[in-house]
Amino acid sequence: MSTYAYLGPSGTFTEAALRKITTDSDQLIPYANVTAALNAVRTGKAEFALVPIENSVEGVVARTLDELATGEPLVIVAEVTLPVTFALMTKPETVVINRIATHPHGESQCRTYIANNYPNAEVIATNSTAAAAEALSRGEFDAAIASPTAAAQYGLKIVADDIGDTQGAITRFVLASKPGTHPSPTGHDRTSLAAFIGRDHAGALLEVLTEFAVRGVNLTFIQSRPTGGELGQYHFIIDAEGHIDEARVGDALTGLRRICEDIRFLGSYARADKMEPTTPKNMNDRSFSESREWLSEVRNGRAT
Amino acid sequence: MSTYAYLGPSGTFTEAALRKITTDSDQLIPYANVTAALNAVRTGKAEFALVPIENSVEGVVARTLDELATGEPLVIVAEVTLPVTFALMTKPETVVINRIATHPHGESQCRTYIANNYPNAEVIATNSTAAAAEALSRGEFDAAIASPTAAAQYGLKIVADDIGDTQGAITRFVLASKPGTHPSPTGHDRTSLAAFIGRDHAGALLEVLTEFAVRGVNLTFIQSRPTGGELGQYHFIIDAEGHIDEARVGDALTGLRRICEDIRFLGSYARADKMEPTTPKNMNDRSFSESREWLSEVRNGRAT
Amino acid sequence: MSTYAYLGPSGTFTEAALRKITTDSDQLIPYANVTAALNAVRTGKAEFALVPIENSVEGVVARTLDELATGEPLVIVAEVTLPVTFALMTKPETVVINRIATHPHGESQCRTYIANNYPNAEVIATNSTAAAAEALSRGEFDAAIASPTAAAQYGLKIVADDIGDTQGAITRFVLASKPGTHPSPTGHDRTSLAAFIGRDHAGALLEVLTEFAVRGVNLTFIQSRPTGGELGQYHFIIDAEGHIDEARVGDALTGLRRICEDIRFLGSYARADKMEPTTPKNMNDRSFSESREWLSEVRNGRAT
Amino acid sequence: MSTYAYLGPSGTFTEAALRKITTDSDQLIPYANVTAALNAVRTGKAEFALVPIENSVEGVVARTLDELATGEPLVIVAEVTLPVTFALMTKPETVVINRIATHPHGESQCRTYIANNYPNAEVIATNSTAAAAEALSRGEFDAAIASPTAAAQYGLKIVADDIGDTQGAITRFVLASKPGTHPSPTGHDRTSLAAFIGRDHAGALLEVLTEFAVRGVNLTFIQSRPTGGELGQYHFIIDAEGHIDEARVGDALTGLRRICEDIRFLGSYARADKMEPTTPKNMNDRSFSESREWLSEVRNGRAT
Repeated sequence: MSTYAYLGPSGTFTEAALRKITTDSDQLIPYANVTAALNAVRTGKAEFALVPIENSVEGVVARTLDELATGEPLVIVAEVTLPVTFALMTKPETVVINRIATHPHGESQCRTYIANNYPNAEVIATNSTAAAAEALSRGEFDAAIASPTAAAQYGLKIVADDIGDTQGAITRFVLASKPGTHPSPTGHDRTSLAAFIGRDHAGALLEVLTEFAVRGVNLTFIQSRPTGGELGQYHFIIDAEGHIDEARVGDALTGLRRICEDIRFLGSYARADKMEPTTPKNMNDRSFSESREWLSEVRNGRAT
Repeated sequence: MSTYAYLGPSGTFTEAALRKITTDSDQLIPYANVTAALNAVRTGKAEFALVPIENSVEGVVARTLDELATGEPLVIVAEVTLPVTFALMTKPETVVINRIATHPHGESQCRTYIANNYPNAEVIATNSTAAAAEALSRGEFDAAIASPTAAAQYGLKIVADDIGDTQGAITRFVLASKPGTHPSPTGHDRTSLAAFIGRDHAGALLEVLTEFAVRGVNLTFIQSRPTGGELGQYHFIIDAEGHIDEARVGDALTGLRRICEDIRFLGSYARADKMEPTTPKNMNDRSFSESREWLSEVRNGRAT
Repeated sequence: MSTYAYLGPSGTFTEAALRKITTDSDQLIPYANVTAALNAVRTGKAEFALVPIENSVEGVVARTLDELATGEPLVIVAEVTLPVTFALMTKPETVVINRIATHPHGESQCRTYIANNYPNAEVIATNSTAAAAEALSRGEFDAAIASPTAAAQYGLKIVADDIGDTQGAITRFVLASKPGTHPSPTGHDRTSLAAFIGRDHAGALLEVLTEFAVRGVNLTFIQSRPTGGELGQYHFIIDAEGHIDEARVGDALTGLRRICEDIRFLGSYARADKMEPTTPKNMNDRSFSESREWLSEVRNGRAT
Repeated sequence: MSTYAYLGPSGTFTEAALRKITTDSDQLIPYANVTAALNAVRTGKAEFALVPIENSVEGVVARTLDELATGEPLVIVAEVTLPVTFALMTKPETVVINRIATHPHGESQCRTYIANNYPNAEVIATNSTAAAAEALSRGEFDAAIASPTAAAQYGLKIVADDIGDTQGAITRFVLASKPGTHPSPTGHDRTSLAAFIGRDHAGALLEVLTEFAVRGVNLTFIQSRPTGGELGQYHFIIDAEGHIDEARVGDALTGLRRICEDIRFLGSYARADKMEPTTPKNMNDRSFSESREWLSEVRNGRAT
């Protein structure tokens, strides 16, 4: 039995995502925001915290990136993805919908549906889609846009399902824990890190990427972020294919360590989409160990 | 006199930013969201639209990036930055504060202030900080967290100013117009573009960055974004130093055009911070024209 | 009718190579060494000079490289390759072979044959293999190792043909003329140049090669050479696939012009082996002109 | 006491170079050519062989490069440089000079002197400059152009010293031995290697050089050489700053091992010019070991 913090309240997409990786015996505690959920792990109140990191429509969750890159260190040990589906829900007896509550993201992702079906409805912002569902269950508003999970949780009726403008939208969540353990390689892993470069110059980022490229390590995500809350000084959040226990990834990290002002390891963990890296054969672990054995032989004068 | 669309409602930070670049005779029209504001330009209802693109605390505005990169083409013709300062405001006669309204971003950026001063207050989400101020002026809630501009606009009293957790936070806004004009180079310009790479491989992004580096063009921003609303297929939003009319920037763009599946020019415009690029001497316009003249001479057999 | 200088004397491999590209009406003048042959063009005594530049066994002809890179400018307008075949030849009546004359290169390339067949013969050095044949015809020595051409020229009998240790050895010759003309592209061209880098640093050569790589230009030869006859300061002699009139090659040269302390164009000419460059489709002339038209459209506001 | 093979005969520049690194008790054995001298080591007849590898005027000695790169493996354990000075010498009693003997390289390097002072003299080629001096001592010819060392050895009179056209010309010799030992790092070392790339493509050489550049390793020499005696298939002979026992050099070699079809280590040895590498601080051994310790800590969960 483990304790999991998550971005609450109960009924959010994050809770739905968390249920995919926990069992009934685990304890799930909602927190009001990303920082609070991560702090629960930092202070020992929870072993893990699940927070959203990237939404295919709304973009990255900057607070999550910043907390991981510059807050007290945590590492990602798992990722979960969840299709983002929105449902319009009411109390069972409701007939007329004049006031719809939802989180602003919910409104922005369901704009077309609302415009077509409830052009005259007033849309009221809530702190989360789950909060909209909860308030609806208490009699506020006429309807809520939230996840189907929330409807079940608050005894609401789904009037229309999958009403988001973008089909196939998903949210990626990461499970953070204190440094100290990392999951074993699975063959379809991702490694996240933050790279701080001292002074920006034409080619600074190029040097960072070259460290990956010479080891055949592919990147799946990159974003520059202002360091220290001000525009001007930047660091990079990078997701790379592979696991830190794999030679090419570890070697790339030592290279970054040498050329960056600072680097922070943010975790190696199985990809939710189970996609395997397209590692060239000459960059696998065997090739690395063979090349090091050869070097050792050459240094000892037993090979050329 | 020009017509400007902006992310409304009246009283938002965006309006405050817009007032920095417009005159009293210009017409300013608020729109409910980024897409609507940009569509006003696309449909000819406005000449320009000002929308936020990046907040040093909250991160990029994904909708703005996506609209520019994949929506009907617009180009950025100016940028404006605004320090993000939050004020707590009430109606002039208010004494007790139990219910505070603000946009969720306002809450997340003023969390420490609220916890220290109004630990028991209920925080209610609104669609924007300006909407909170407006509702407050109509008698809903006891207080609002919004920009000082909003207080002035709605006749509210500022109880505490500059209450954000992060000092020095700023928001960057971009002014978009239809393609067809771009501002002349100023010596401190930025060029934005979206680069779509066909298939991701170790080194695809490296090739993109190399096109800039070989021409001595420095980057100030980079972010990978999923193309088409799904995680997996990516494009890159890139800000580079310099102006498309400068030889090194234009040349880098032709290089990208050749190696990318697609590339979209998003505008060349003066940087709000007036920082000049650190272009090496051998990469200035004179060096480019000299090298091309030399090539022409060599091709004509008049030089070697 | 043209006048051709060549590395003499009459009967050398160079003359044999020259006969492949001249007609009976042309005038062929032998010179004692590479510098003298090239100077004949510089001073107007000849229109062209054919000199060896690279032998697959003996390596590059440094004098040719240095003359082209640092002497008074000439450009290569053609290349000729010749299989290097050595023959042992005598006067028709000779029976016993005790003294064999040849150029030191001839000796070094036929060492195995000599050791197996004439282990006790004395080998005498001459200034060229042709000089050995000529001296033999005057009654000096018992035999000569030279090209079959020389045997015909001096009325000698070939005792054994193709006696070189290395099968498939070839020599590459270049035809130099005054700058002012260069041959039209053939689709299988080579471009030669000398690149002088100011100060050597880790990556200086990398930058040079990157200029080629970003334009998809493959190299077929590279050699560092000390500049000014002293070890320590270097320049690079580079052969690249393609013709200076092709966009990607011309563009790469302008890039080199910008980053190198100096660059000298040494000619674009058809490859003797007629091998076509493996230019990726997105680096052909059409792709370059398309990308430049696009840039022009974007600069004029008619595209994005 | 050691046995040294060298490119003879006695009196050559190679012998003069060898005397700089041997003592009177060592045994010095001349061989007729580079291959024979190196074979003496391969067959155990000598412990070391000194052969020329590069002349600042005449260029590289291709046979030496090819023997080291593709012959039975040997490693370079030292290098010696020698200023190339030519002297005109005669028997003590000689007055008139009509016939001058020398190696073709001697003639080519003293062309101006001969043209100015003995315009009508016949120049006769010998197998080496020492052979010219030796023949002169036996009464053949009137004069010889050879090293001052040869004059002393054969009891000849130096008529004019330092008559080469190029001042400051030097020859670099390498001392080869069987693999098994290599000299300890001195702080001013050079590492030589041969890199075989499978198929040539735009960027193949770039990848090779990138392996050095990412570790801050500077190159001092590079030459492409046809593999197998035929033009078309290439390998590269590369000299890099630093010693294989240094982390950055060893690491670069493992990188090459992974990406090259084959790589051969040709030795790490002190530079004759004692020039120290300009290694950036973040690429020294300490930086490498620190980065590897960090990786180990991260892998064990004790750091991020």
